[in-house]
Amino acid sequence: MPHVIIVGCGFGGLAAARELADAKVDITIIDRSNHHLFQPLLYQVATAGLSAPAISAPIRSILAKQRNLTSLMAAVSKIDVARKTIALEDGSEIAYDYLIVAAGSTHSYFGHDEWAPLAPGLKTLADAFDIRRRILMAFERAEREPDSVRRAEWLTFTVIGAGATGVEMAGTLIEIARHTLRGEFRRIDPQQAKVVLLEGSERVLGAYPADLSEKARAQLVKLGVDVRTSSRVTHIDEECVRYTDQSGEQRLASRTVIWSAGVAASPLGKSLNVPLDRAGRVIIGSELWIPDHPEVFVIGDLAAVTSDGKPVPGVSPAAKQMGRVAARNIINRISGKPLENFVYQDYGSLATIGRKAAVAMVGKFKFSGYPAWLFWLFVHVYFLIGFRNRLLVMSDWAWAYLTFKRSARVISNAIDTPVEKPDDAPSQ
Amino acid sequence: MPHVIIVGCGFGGLAAARELADAKVDITIIDRSNHHLFQPLLYQVATAGLSAPAISAPIRSILAKQRNLTSLMAAVSKIDVARKTIALEDGSEIAYDYLIVAAGSTHSYFGHDEWAPLAPGLKTLADAFDIRRRILMAFERAEREPDSVRRAEWLTFTVIGAGATGVEMAGTLIEIARHTLRGEFRRIDPQQAKVVLLEGSERVLGAYPADLSEKARAQLVKLGVDVRTSSRVTHIDEECVRYTDQSGEQRLASRTVIWSAGVAASPLGKSLNVPLDRAGRVIIGSELWIPDHPEVFVIGDLAAVTSDGKPVPGVSPAAKQMGRVAARNIINRISGKPLENFVYQDYGSLATIGRKAAVAMVGKFKFSGYPAWLFWLFVHVYFLIGFRNRLLVMSDWAWAYLTFKRSARVISNAIDTPVEKPDDAPSQ
Repeated sequence: MPHVIIVGCGFGGLAAARELADAKVDITIIDRSNHHLFQPLLYQVATAGLSAPAISAPIRSILAKQRNLTSLMAAVSKIDVARKTIALEDGSEIAYDYLIVAAGSTHSYFGHDEWAPLAPGLKTLADAFDIRRRILMAFERAEREPDSVRRAEWLTFTVIGAGATGVEMAGTLIEIARHTLRGEFRRIDPQQAKVVLLEGSERVLGAYPADLSEKARAQLVKLGVDVRTSSRVTHIDEECVRYTDQSGEQRLASRTVIWSAGVAASPLGKSLNVPLDRAGRVIIGSELWIPDHPEVFVIGDLAAVTSDGKPVPGVSPAAKQMGRVAARNIINRISGKPLENFVYQDYGSLATIGRKAAVAMVGKFKFSGYPAWLFWLFVHVYFLIGFRNRLLVMSDWAWAYLTFKRSARVISNAIDTPVEKPDDAPSQ
Repeated sequence: MPHVIIVGCGFGGLAAARELADAKVDITIIDRSNHHLFQPLLYQVATAGLSAPAISAPIRSILAKQRNLTSLMAAVSKIDVARKTIALEDGSEIAYDYLIVAAGSTHSYFGHDEWAPLAPGLKTLADAFDIRRRILMAFERAEREPDSVRRAEWLTFTVIGAGATGVEMAGTLIEIARHTLRGEFRRIDPQQAKVVLLEGSERVLGAYPADLSEKARAQLVKLGVDVRTSSRVTHIDEECVRYTDQSGEQRLASRTVIWSAGVAASPLGKSLNVPLDRAGRVIIGSELWIPDHPEVFVIGDLAAVTSDGKPVPGVSPAAKQMGRVAARNIINRISGKPLENFVYQDYGSLATIGRKAAVAMVGKFKFSGYPAWLFWLFVHVYFLIGFRNRLLVMSDWAWAYLTFKRSARVISNAIDTPVEKPDDAPSQ
């Protein structure tokens, strides 16, 4: 039977594996971690609202019943399209007949990799634990700091980049400061904490229409976030962030900085030896295979593809849809049938901002505030993998909503690891 | 108002703090971590059955409403009883009028500290994450191992020490191999995994009567655990454990080893300059204060105290009872009243072994098997701190019981930290 390797078990890789469940192929799915991650809720782990198991599930367990599939926990270091093999980091090689590369994306610091340890981004559970530790430790440090200037530095949180993740982080951080920690400290007042959202462009949620961006900004400001657009970061160190805005260079004293400004494709794309776009994504046609190698498919965040003449966004529904099309096209190739074209089905966009605050766009409908937030809640719980996780997440949220408490406020010593360099941690 | 410092927020420290809720004192409670841990269920985190937030709660949150109390996340490095100060690891000092030392215990490797990184013990959440990662990674490594001898090494798990924790770990490990992972691997059969429980003395659960030890052993064997008593470990390395039994020196090829053989008191006891027992515990009278310093109390696992002529065991009910007596004796000292004597109330002993398997002893009643297991379940859920955690743990367990699934099977990169040396990590 033909051997299909799928690299990466994110939304795209998982959808491809499932689509091949009844096909007469041997599948090996390879992922660096042992779990599939529901990335849209990762910011809730980073902000102590959810525990890691609530948004992740063991890949083996999800795919246990698919008898034509083997799951391998390993890091892929290279793809050799000429010899039709992939190399693992331990030096071993595996041959394929068909390959689906779904290795995803990682953070990009726009040439400033030295910022990575100072301003972690949010892609993996390890990132989320790191950010959670930094946020909780900042309040602990502030409580122990006798100097009022330094105390204010510890109580200033900066989020860089006002895309969906940045907006969610800023909105949740202000909720933690204003509500969750209220009354728990004796020397500081957590409500004095400042959350600053820096964005290089002119508006927040740049992928949304201008009126929804404006609504999102208004909701952030109402929650208490200090939103500063047209502010380009030029420097980060342990004590401050520097940026330029219309009035010149500014210095923001802040000891906790979170990066949500840039995304780069997995470095695995390079080893395919085909044209990449500026973000490092593999440029492919609508049948999703790469030039000269009809047996190699690229999907998800790693793929630069257009649909109806427009670039397809790096969101989970697009990854899932590509995964299914790539899987069906492998079946088509094997059976000698014509291939299918990928056409992106846009079900709408949704971004949460905080408690009762969100913006949504479904077809021609745009809405915001409480209704958008309820809609967001429903959609995210619905799509979470596994019935049990849905129940867990709902009960965690119901509890958090009613009490403002957050259940996952553990600072563990195990989490005192240095931040990985972005290039070492593709979210394959 | 007199300043009371409590070092450590385990069961003893927390009980003392609560007992002082209405006293006219200023309390500072200091703990190295930000959370109170329900240690009796820590093995469930180590074996992926529970998530960390389910068995831990932020100390600030638990004690938020106690207005006479300040909580400090910090590590205490030294106690100076002459100057009535404690020193923190950051160099600062805090003065006290009364001190309660509840710094607990840590692992002891009986002079073989080089075994610590090879055979982690279970005291903190960091330990539990480390052990969880080792167990899950061993199955992953076995799946990727082409050599059958090495594969068997990866599938052999050794637990050293058959006290309550060792018995729980062994029973749960065999359940993971036989049930949880069934059908999820393609090259190995997790049911082939071996769990060996090594114990130096003649029987398991040595603190229990001989007939209950025998019942526990029978239940372990029935679950599939290979129980080897009178087996003293002499050597551990990355590939094997060596031990001596009646027939001489034995070699057990095993790549995952868990240590539950020895406990040592926190090194903070030494800085009190008073007599210690062989395990490093502070020898105190029944009023719980140390010789020459009537303002310094020692409680919990760090205290060597007798009640009715018998040594008080290092269990959580004893720590809680001591905490309350020490707190009341501080109030008695302040108001010039005579001090109270600590008398240990023994409510019984309970050890779980695995699914439907446990032994229990309540007064003169001894029972084992399913009834003991149900009793254990009830008692542990009841005593878990916080209504919400109780619900979470119950739902996790109900789910695990019905499906054999375990919810917390995440291997996170963040957890790839070296094991801390035991001396660096008192569970204060």
